[in-house]
Amino acid sequence: MSMFTEEYDVIVVGGGHAGCEAAAAAANLGSKTLLVTMNLQTIGQMSCNPAMGGIAKGQIVREIDALGGYSGIVSDRSAIQFKMLNKSKGPAMWSPRTQNDRMRFAEEWRLSLERTQHLDFYQEMVSDLIVSEDRVVGVRTSLGLEIRGRSVVLTNGTFLNGLIHIGEKQFGGGRAGERAARGITEQLAEMGFDTGRMKTGTPPRVDGRSLDFSKMIPQPGDAEPGRFSYLDTPKLTRQRECHMTYTSPEVHELLMEGFDRSPMFNGRIQSIGPRYCPSIEDKIHRFKDKDRHQLFVEPEGWDTVEVYVNGFSTSLPEDVQFRALRSVAGFENVKFFRPGYAIEYDYFPPTQLRHTLETKLIENLYFAGQINGTTGYEEAASQGLMAGINAHLKLNEKEPFILRRDEAYIGVLIDDLITKGTEEPYRMFTSRAEYRTLLRQDNADLRLTEKSFRMGLASEERMRAVEQKKAQSQDLVGFFKKTSFVPEEINPILETVGSKNVDQGDKLFKVFSRPQVQMEHMMQLESVSEYVRENQLGQEVLEQAEIEVKYSGYIEKEKNNADKLQRLENVKIPEGFDYSQVKSLSYEAREKLGRIRPATLSQASRVSGVSPSDISVLMVFLNR
Amino acid sequence: MSMFTEEYDVIVVGGGHAGCEAAAAAANLGSKTLLVTMNLQTIGQMSCNPAMGGIAKGQIVREIDALGGYSGIVSDRSAIQFKMLNKSKGPAMWSPRTQNDRMRFAEEWRLSLERTQHLDFYQEMVSDLIVSEDRVVGVRTSLGLEIRGRSVVLTNGTFLNGLIHIGEKQFGGGRAGERAARGITEQLAEMGFDTGRMKTGTPPRVDGRSLDFSKMIPQPGDAEPGRFSYLDTPKLTRQRECHMTYTSPEVHELLMEGFDRSPMFNGRIQSIGPRYCPSIEDKIHRFKDKDRHQLFVEPEGWDTVEVYVNGFSTSLPEDVQFRALRSVAGFENVKFFRPGYAIEYDYFPPTQLRHTLETKLIENLYFAGQINGTTGYEEAASQGLMAGINAHLKLNEKEPFILRRDEAYIGVLIDDLITKGTEEPYRMFTSRAEYRTLLRQDNADLRLTEKSFRMGLASEERMRAVEQKKAQSQDLVGFFKKTSFVPEEINPILETVGSKNVDQGDKLFKVFSRPQVQMEHMMQLESVSEYVRENQLGQEVLEQAEIEVKYSGYIEKEKNNADKLQRLENVKIPEGFDYSQVKSLSYEAREKLGRIRPATLSQASRVSGVSPSDISVLMVFLNR
Repeated sequence: MSMFTEEYDVIVVGGGHAGCEAAAAAANLGSKTLLVTMNLQTIGQMSCNPAMGGIAKGQIVREIDALGGYSGIVSDRSAIQFKMLNKSKGPAMWSPRTQNDRMRFAEEWRLSLERTQHLDFYQEMVSDLIVSEDRVVGVRTSLGLEIRGRSVVLTNGTFLNGLIHIGEKQFGGGRAGERAARGITEQLAEMGFDTGRMKTGTPPRVDGRSLDFSKMIPQPGDAEPGRFSYLDTPKLTRQRECHMTYTSPEVHELLMEGFDRSPMFNGRIQSIGPRYCPSIEDKIHRFKDKDRHQLFVEPEGWDTVEVYVNGFSTSLPEDVQFRALRSVAGFENVKFFRPGYAIEYDYFPPTQLRHTLETKLIENLYFAGQINGTTGYEEAASQGLMAGINAHLKLNEKEPFILRRDEAYIGVLIDDLITKGTEEPYRMFTSRAEYRTLLRQDNADLRLTEKSFRMGLASEERMRAVEQKKAQSQDLVGFFKKTSFVPEEINPILETVGSKNVDQGDKLFKVFSRPQVQMEHMMQLESVSEYVRENQLGQEVLEQAEIEVKYSGYIEKEKNNADKLQRLENVKIPEGFDYSQVKSLSYEAREKLGRIRPATLSQASRVSGVSPSDISVLMVFLNR
Repeated sequence: MSMFTEEYDVIVVGGGHAGCEAAAAAANLGSKTLLVTMNLQTIGQMSCNPAMGGIAKGQIVREIDALGGYSGIVSDRSAIQFKMLNKSKGPAMWSPRTQNDRMRFAEEWRLSLERTQHLDFYQEMVSDLIVSEDRVVGVRTSLGLEIRGRSVVLTNGTFLNGLIHIGEKQFGGGRAGERAARGITEQLAEMGFDTGRMKTGTPPRVDGRSLDFSKMIPQPGDAEPGRFSYLDTPKLTRQRECHMTYTSPEVHELLMEGFDRSPMFNGRIQSIGPRYCPSIEDKIHRFKDKDRHQLFVEPEGWDTVEVYVNGFSTSLPEDVQFRALRSVAGFENVKFFRPGYAIEYDYFPPTQLRHTLETKLIENLYFAGQINGTTGYEEAASQGLMAGINAHLKLNEKEPFILRRDEAYIGVLIDDLITKGTEEPYRMFTSRAEYRTLLRQDNADLRLTEKSFRMGLASEERMRAVEQKKAQSQDLVGFFKKTSFVPEEINPILETVGSKNVDQGDKLFKVFSRPQVQMEHMMQLESVSEYVRENQLGQEVLEQAEIEVKYSGYIEKEKNNADKLQRLENVKIPEGFDYSQVKSLSYEAREKLGRIRPATLSQASRVSGVSPSDISVLMVFLNR
């Protein structure tokens, strides 16, 4: 009797953000799931900065939560600070972010997964996949154990042939202090997968006791901290501050002295790193005219003295890192816990995937996270969630769960990956979403929870919460539309915000639509505050209603645009469609479409090198 | 400017029990100390069972605490269960034990160390020592960093050339999922150190959700849980149960089926494992007539479902482990988190050390923990403490801090190690201590705190607590000695415990000395309970007084014995003493004493192969 006699439905390889979400989703949907990881003690590690969310990424965490994933809950429970970024801009830009206690975060993940039914755990390195007739049927571990599984989700992060660089030194490793994983890349390459190398980096960790915070600018959390989860996770009653400081020309000089020993500049690292999360040497090199760069000094937890120096990611020799950081204000006496480093690792260009994150080459094999060339916890977690969901659905012969670009950042992320591929670590931005007015952090539940509930993932509790929020906010908008004001009550308020007086009464909606007038001003009206009190409306409902009143015009317009493009989405391209038969297609379009194999005309239109006229040709052909 | 420009006083290599205590002690004494470890995330890991203390080991934890070490406090703060073992035996056998939350334990260690002044941290592998003229002057890391230190404490645990065995498979590693460390052994061997290999093992970790606890025997903690620390660490208000179950002839049969693939029996593992913590295959092999062995099923924390199967340590092939464990009552559906394994690692026979744990060959180089051939968290921690203390004292040209065999288990441990050496992993037992009536868990503070306070390690708070306890318990004993009873009040009590009635009044001391009469019975006397109430005496004071009353005879006798032997202890043997000049010594004694180089005649008497007549000869010679 082998240790694994039974067949799992879903085997998830890796216990980072992607693996954790994949395992939770598949198990919660009812699939018999196994999470295999090299070290069960390091499940849910924040291997880089101790924070979740941020611009566009915070929206993704909200989407994950709305779908019933765990990242939002885990982040809330381990948060030491909450901040809604971009609050001064339009609501499409509002982005929640938490600073987190690194140890708590990992512990919350571990315990959340342990509480998940249908989910087993096993600690070992997976060395290869068991594949039969182009279908994955299990994994093999380094001990030689065979574990049978009807589908496999690979979430190997930076571990596949991970190679750590510090200055001129390099050594194998998946993360600092941890081993690299070997075997899988080689096997997949042999099966015909394209593989590539990427690199990413991380800054030094330092001893907070050695810093002079009085020389830095405090960065407190919000006075009224929010949270990621749409469920009732506890709100923060105290918070820890971050701090801001800056590099200087002197710091840049000192860093540049090490450039000849930098693996980035001496050719030792060939792989491409994340453009929008560059190393400090990259920033100095690319932006020669900038005489300072911002550093964001983040505590690693409630009680620990360890500090993360965000913005100072580097693979320069450790003595150069040290010397330069010592010249930063507040860091004059800094002591290192460990130097920053760069890591190169294998990834698989994601154009080899379907929308479900299943690989095209091997059935029931899914990829999620950095293995697909993305960077970021949130990007990884959301792919894990989607892979876990789709692995389950396919095994149960159900429709795949695919989010459109106008439905979720997660939809944008996956569509970008599989349609355009990526040659550098892919990070989400609001600018990548053409419908970002629709994809707000406030409405992820309204957009997604019902879909997930129908599928059996989001709980009834979630569904009820959404329904209530929806009904209450619509009622409140209705109240604003039908309730009138008289000039005497509104004019004093308008004056305080510097908005023109009115001569005659009108509906509340009208005056609320003015840019200067916000919910807090409306609440000064007796009628409004009474309605809110009587109906016991929460903050989320007020926010929702306000956004609907003030941005309904923009939102409507985007919805219309999305609907138009949706028509292209409805034109499916048969699997295995032979583009060579469409003679009027451009040569480039034929070649690229044949390789990417888009599932719909809409996806085809986003493949680079495919022109609108190619799309017209295809539409005519397909409509025949 | 290198990252480490300044010279440390003490560099501690390794962040396990030994390393943590060494770093804390040296830093608290005022030495500028650096803790270097391969992974700062795994400081204070309980790499084997999630428990501290137990027979003889609990006494060591109390001694560490009395000396101002952290192990007791960390254990108390992370405890999920407390039990005083052997409560039915004499107080010399009473041994406190906690079950611990593995994650909390590590976190408490990490945070305690972070709060320690003069202590820095650095994450990297130390690859070799920097030695100048037979004196260590620093360490070199795998990155090539040189860190200067006036002394170095090596606490490498099982990491030095660690080799993990499971059945016929073997791979390098310091612990499951972690890398081995290389370089140091080779360098030390080159310098002339003897090295050897030892092995130890660990049982499978399993999923508590897969166990049927109703088939096992619950093992709750004490109704009134105590604690390790003499300081006011919080007492447990709730506890988690352990469980007991047994192997069976069927289980043994199943295990034996794998013996031909066992690295223990097929010659692959040559090193000797811990005799008193044997693997399950060892137990079956050695005790063929026993048809069952006890398994102690320990939860790994407050909330985790992970479970430790104490008593089932094994390096049999994982399928054999699995099959056999499935036949144990309650384990019919067990799921593994990871299999058990054996690990071989380098150690240095400890006869190469002085009583201070400094090596004889290289000045200012100290060894502590498994590197000295010991096994057990407590053994490791206490050596770390002593090495840290002595490293500091030597740098400050102070007298070494050496505990005698009649002063502490720690004294027994170190004296055994350096005098007799060990060829198998050395574990502490009460039977190793010839003065175990003196070395009780209740009086470690009375024995040790003042010494440590004088040296500057134990805090004033500790010293005050000891003084109070001492005064109060002596007063209470005095009260029993001078206070009389009348037969009418004592006889009803004597009847309830089945002790003979008295005819006439006498001092309380007299009747309390009877074996059946315990403090709880004395407390039924109005005079006693009033005294205790009025003087607000705590549980520890009552316990102390009771032991003094009831065991004073034994204690006196042992003290006298110890004093007699102490005379031998006072006869110092000059360093570099030339035994070959003492012609009347036996050849064996000359050879062994020349190798071990005992510091005193007493130590010489404990060297194996040295006879009482050799000691007489030496005494005469030295007294000339």
